[in-house]
Amino acid sequence: MLTNRQTIRIEWGDCDPAGIVYFPRYFEFFDACTRALFERAGLFKRDMLKTYGIAGIPVVDMKARFMIPSRFGDDVVVESTVSKWGKSSFVVRHQLMKGDGMAMAIECFETRVWVAHPNGDAEKFETRAIPEEVKNKFGGH
Amino acid sequence: MLTNRQTIRIEWGDCDPAGIVYFPRYFEFFDACTRALFERAGLFKRDMLKTYGIAGIPVVDMKARFMIPSRFGDDVVVESTVSKWGKSSFVVRHQLMKGDGMAMAIECFETRVWVAHPNGDAEKFETRAIPEEVKNKFGGH
Amino acid sequence: MLTNRQTIRIEWGDCDPAGIVYFPRYFEFFDACTRALFERAGLFKRDMLKTYGIAGIPVVDMKARFMIPSRFGDDVVVESTVSKWGKSSFVVRHQLMKGDGMAMAIECFETRVWVAHPNGDAEKFETRAIPEEVKNKFGGH
Amino acid sequence: MLTNRQTIRIEWGDCDPAGIVYFPRYFEFFDACTRALFERAGLFKRDMLKTYGIAGIPVVDMKARFMIPSRFGDDVVVESTVSKWGKSSFVVRHQLMKGDGMAMAIECFETRVWVAHPNGDAEKFETRAIPEEVKNKFGGH
Repeated sequence: MLTNRQTIRIEWGDCDPAGIVYFPRYFEFFDACTRALFERAGLFKRDMLKTYGIAGIPVVDMKARFMIPSRFGDDVVVESTVSKWGKSSFVVRHQLMKGDGMAMAIECFETRVWVAHPNGDAEKFETRAIPEEVKNKFGGH
Repeated sequence: MLTNRQTIRIEWGDCDPAGIVYFPRYFEFFDACTRALFERAGLFKRDMLKTYGIAGIPVVDMKARFMIPSRFGDDVVVESTVSKWGKSSFVVRHQLMKGDGMAMAIECFETRVWVAHPNGDAEKFETRAIPEEVKNKFGGH
Repeated sequence: MLTNRQTIRIEWGDCDPAGIVYFPRYFEFFDACTRALFERAGLFKRDMLKTYGIAGIPVVDMKARFMIPSRFGDDVVVESTVSKWGKSSFVVRHQLMKGDGMAMAIECFETRVWVAHPNGDAEKFETRAIPEEVKNKFGGH
Repeated sequence: MLTNRQTIRIEWGDCDPAGIVYFPRYFEFFDACTRALFERAGLFKRDMLKTYGIAGIPVVDMKARFMIPSRFGDDVVVESTVSKWGKSSFVVRHQLMKGDGMAMAIECFETRVWVAHPNGDAEKFETRAIPEEVKNKFGGH
């Protein structure tokens, strides 16, 4: 399965008064990592939305365990892969690792759905089947 | 059990190009709702950190289901309560509701720990037992 | 001139490792205050975009002076007013005040433009004349 | 004068319902660019705070002109340099450029001050003279 590996520098503005990452920032990182994983599969988000006529791939379920905190100035590595494909949904697993031993600091599973605007109504969303050619770009399933 | 009810206006800047809330923003809302729940229990965060000599109450586990999206201009309601007390950890349940029927749009469980800096070392964190008087302020357990 | 007065609680997540507000957060506050000022004038953003066929009121110029820092747990007050109307642009002045004496902590001038998508092309923006009826809702100019 | 050049990918979550960058995000980018400029000068923020006994380099004045919007998926380049050194303050100029012709999309001047906690009181800040050796690392002034 295709895996993307991304290095992220923790910025001053990502951290809270305790000096560690304010946890919602991690979900911004993971969202960018999912984008990068798709790009590695040849799917540039802006083009993908047009090509497949979808409105986005919103998150419908999120599970995360935070084991080791990170501080500003840290460089962390996030490995991301699609761990499961459904008909119109998929799960991305992110593992944030850090330090010399690349200890796992965070594990996150985000479930996303493939959605379009029904009848072009920009205020509504409905799920669609994920094209097989999209799944195939990630190396089989 | 003590419950806090908070109304939140969804701002333009909370939303993404699909016009709906960018999901990490919800975790910022929930963090503020936990703060507000503690305040309702008489625990103002800045004072609480000093009184109990702790560094914070960081999140160690997060589970969330996103059922209905919200758009800029929406007013949503979040109900928050401590659903479980452990020795040095606790779980806060947030339910984000919206619309005339107050449909549940998001359900979130965040597990937090009571941590201090061991020997005053600002770069380390270790869990401490949550004082009974803190738990009691939330109405028994 | 119409003025909006908004109280804002500084949240833990708004603050940086120095314990004070991370300055980009102030611009999020001010953006919400401009939204609230328009609402006080009877212009609810979601409806306004549709009624006048515009894509938004993006910021084209920003000037801010930060005089007194704020910390998590502080309650600050922001007073916002349109200080100048142009043909297709306008300036909003925000004054963030705090403490018993309501000392001015930040003064900010944001210039915004009234823009639409030319020929419905969602990727382009062009300025439009601001309708007189919009300006009139703010109490003359 | 030392200049830092940074490429930034505009993420989905940086953009608003109009599909363009929500302007406070630019100030987060610029803050990270100032950090990167200091690092290029050999000043890693975490170490710098300790070495010089300072609490941070907060922004006290900000001026920005936004000329061309950016959209998710865009790669932009930010060039940053210290344009002026004062006794205890300095100005960083950021130029955000984009497209084949590297057109200037945003120009920003941020004034920062060198501050410490007087007598170790973490709730107070006072300016200090910037050491000459710090200024010298940026290539004379």
